[in-house]
Amino acid sequence: MAALLNGLRILEIGHFVAAPFCTRLLGDLGADIIKIEPLDGDPVRQWGAQIDGKSLWWSMHGRNKRSITLNLKKPEAREIILGLVASCDAVVENFRPGQLAKLGLGPDVLRGVRPDLVMAHISGFGQDGPYRDRAAFGVVGEAVGGLRYLTNHRPGESDLPPVRVGVSIGDSLAGLYAAFGVMAALWERDRSGRPSDSGAASPHSLDVALSEAVFSMMEGMLPEYGALGKVKQPTGGGIATAAPSNAYPTADGNWMLIAANSEPLFAKLAMLMGKPELIGDPRYVSNQTRVENAAQLDAVISDWSSGFNSEDLADKLVAADIPACKAYTAADCAADPQFRYRDMVRAVDDPQFADPVLQAGIVPRVGSSAGSIRWPGPPLGAHTEEILVGMLGMHPTEVAKLRAEGVI
Amino acid sequence: MAALLNGLRILEIGHFVAAPFCTRLLGDLGADIIKIEPLDGDPVRQWGAQIDGKSLWWSMHGRNKRSITLNLKKPEAREIILGLVASCDAVVENFRPGQLAKLGLGPDVLRGVRPDLVMAHISGFGQDGPYRDRAAFGVVGEAVGGLRYLTNHRPGESDLPPVRVGVSIGDSLAGLYAAFGVMAALWERDRSGRPSDSGAASPHSLDVALSEAVFSMMEGMLPEYGALGKVKQPTGGGIATAAPSNAYPTADGNWMLIAANSEPLFAKLAMLMGKPELIGDPRYVSNQTRVENAAQLDAVISDWSSGFNSEDLADKLVAADIPACKAYTAADCAADPQFRYRDMVRAVDDPQFADPVLQAGIVPRVGSSAGSIRWPGPPLGAHTEEILVGMLGMHPTEVAKLRAEGVI
Repeated sequence: MAALLNGLRILEIGHFVAAPFCTRLLGDLGADIIKIEPLDGDPVRQWGAQIDGKSLWWSMHGRNKRSITLNLKKPEAREIILGLVASCDAVVENFRPGQLAKLGLGPDVLRGVRPDLVMAHISGFGQDGPYRDRAAFGVVGEAVGGLRYLTNHRPGESDLPPVRVGVSIGDSLAGLYAAFGVMAALWERDRSGRPSDSGAASPHSLDVALSEAVFSMMEGMLPEYGALGKVKQPTGGGIATAAPSNAYPTADGNWMLIAANSEPLFAKLAMLMGKPELIGDPRYVSNQTRVENAAQLDAVISDWSSGFNSEDLADKLVAADIPACKAYTAADCAADPQFRYRDMVRAVDDPQFADPVLQAGIVPRVGSSAGSIRWPGPPLGAHTEEILVGMLGMHPTEVAKLRAEGVI
Repeated sequence: MAALLNGLRILEIGHFVAAPFCTRLLGDLGADIIKIEPLDGDPVRQWGAQIDGKSLWWSMHGRNKRSITLNLKKPEAREIILGLVASCDAVVENFRPGQLAKLGLGPDVLRGVRPDLVMAHISGFGQDGPYRDRAAFGVVGEAVGGLRYLTNHRPGESDLPPVRVGVSIGDSLAGLYAAFGVMAALWERDRSGRPSDSGAASPHSLDVALSEAVFSMMEGMLPEYGALGKVKQPTGGGIATAAPSNAYPTADGNWMLIAANSEPLFAKLAMLMGKPELIGDPRYVSNQTRVENAAQLDAVISDWSSGFNSEDLADKLVAADIPACKAYTAADCAADPQFRYRDMVRAVDDPQFADPVLQAGIVPRVGSSAGSIRWPGPPLGAHTEEILVGMLGMHPTEVAKLRAEGVI
């Protein structure tokens, strides 16, 4: 079975996380991704843990992409991009707003060679407005979107700062929204059969801000503030409106998530803890009263959970049909039977490393196939010649000349 | 200008967060969303803060959808769903795996009336495998995906449990992946022009697991563990590989995110703090050494930041062109000039409330328009008659009979 997006071609003029994550998702479903890189490569090639100067993250972040180097300051590079755009369905970029236009590669120019081009522009704050020129750091987008204020303990419970999610969630969310937007715009393109209007007003121009991607996920935070003046507060490991639901310590120093926040689930937990008297206790008789007395209740559960190693505790909870799970580390994820069964943890051959590289599988799963990772993140410029000769019809001597002149 | 997904029709047989968030995104871009609800409604109608028993979150979560009530245990309900599916492009559902098939509404049945139907199945762990029947709580998906382990302070720094992100991020991520998958499958449908195979093997069947949606975002965590045995550890407000980047306290009790983790940015920060001597200090001379001495450096910055109110501090940092932002509360988001400029905070008239409800805008932004919220989350069953009469051609007396019989 051919992959879902087989036949779709996307040009990535991006770097770091957001645009490359967008194209990773499109490539995972089968699209042909052409990634433009500067002569010294996307900086993410140097990020994270490395072996012999090669980033392991890159093996996954760059997978299924073809890499072509281009020095965008050279006029020949611009011509090459225009040549490539002519056979691409979409461009995904995350330069600062306006930067591509300054390089002579604005939407009107690109649509001059490809009238129905879909473009996704990803930035920190969006393509217009008073903050548009501010630097697009993920941590700032997360703070502006309201997420970072909430990744904290209850007010007064800790003097430590609110925590990071552990990954550049703002960038990845923006990339995911852009991938959704690209497919929505392509659907409209094929349906209407009409070219895009040139310029930013085109319905095929997508403008994704990191801050807005985060803000869009915040559920009732804004409506509740607007109507009631209620400022959503951090709740540590718990949930403001449900109890018990928290992370509880285990004897071997791990954390066990337990969500027993319904009457039947709470009764099961009380029985499992050998404390049937909690079921009728007026402090814990309904979700409402349990929320009011959550600190006390969490202390009772913590006392109990601390008596078991995480594996034994998880077995007991699962056997009692109570939603629970250890807070998985990388090692737990790698060993998880469900992830292994569904090919979500797979070893990918990568000629840049002696051993295959473990990579996360493809989301969403399409049909009965877990999908195929065609190749890992390629070396810098690995496909430059293939693309220039195969797609633009250049002669190899022309390619050599461009290389000598520092264009590629 | 018509909305991008105008003319697309989606049937949602879902509840809680994941499937309804998916359809909110599709509806935001213009799709016609028909939401099937049990006679007592989606439970999320009762979630979060309320006015007169009406949830404010629902006003946003249910926007742009048409609500029809159906008692799925009645055979007439099944016939109605089949009638609706015939004119729908896609179905989005988040029942437990296999549950819809038990109700006689499996993929083969639905594709019997609509051969090219796209189906998105959202669940906790996926539609197959050893964990498929486990309950799909968002907190569990976040723990299994490896996120919750990381939303914590550095090992040994705090005895408090790792924190929640503040929202059901696992559910929303799954919904966002499903929206992307639906559009990818529709693109393939229109391109190939062929009907789906029936059953789960169809390339138009999408299987999204909460745990996998989260796991998919974890960057280099798995490759680095696989190759080096490195178990990614939580880093509190900081980043393991960049410094200084953290949340720093202010005199008025807020947190200021400051990301000065490059040579030029760090030099700017040192000057702004009146400590030019830090620039040449061997402890802080490169990102590498700053990361090694991050705790000391963060203490220096915290001492300085604590001397200012957040507004003054933000002004200083922005004027010095250093990426920085207060950790925004709901109130800050609501007042933000950039969000206001881009219509990301908008007042939506909702007849269920005396005053308009503040809602987050539409992501991604399409063309030059911020998009339109056609209506807020409707009352339960508000469109039942309109749909049965208008789409299925029923006579109003038939509708009355179904109502009397408890089908709708």
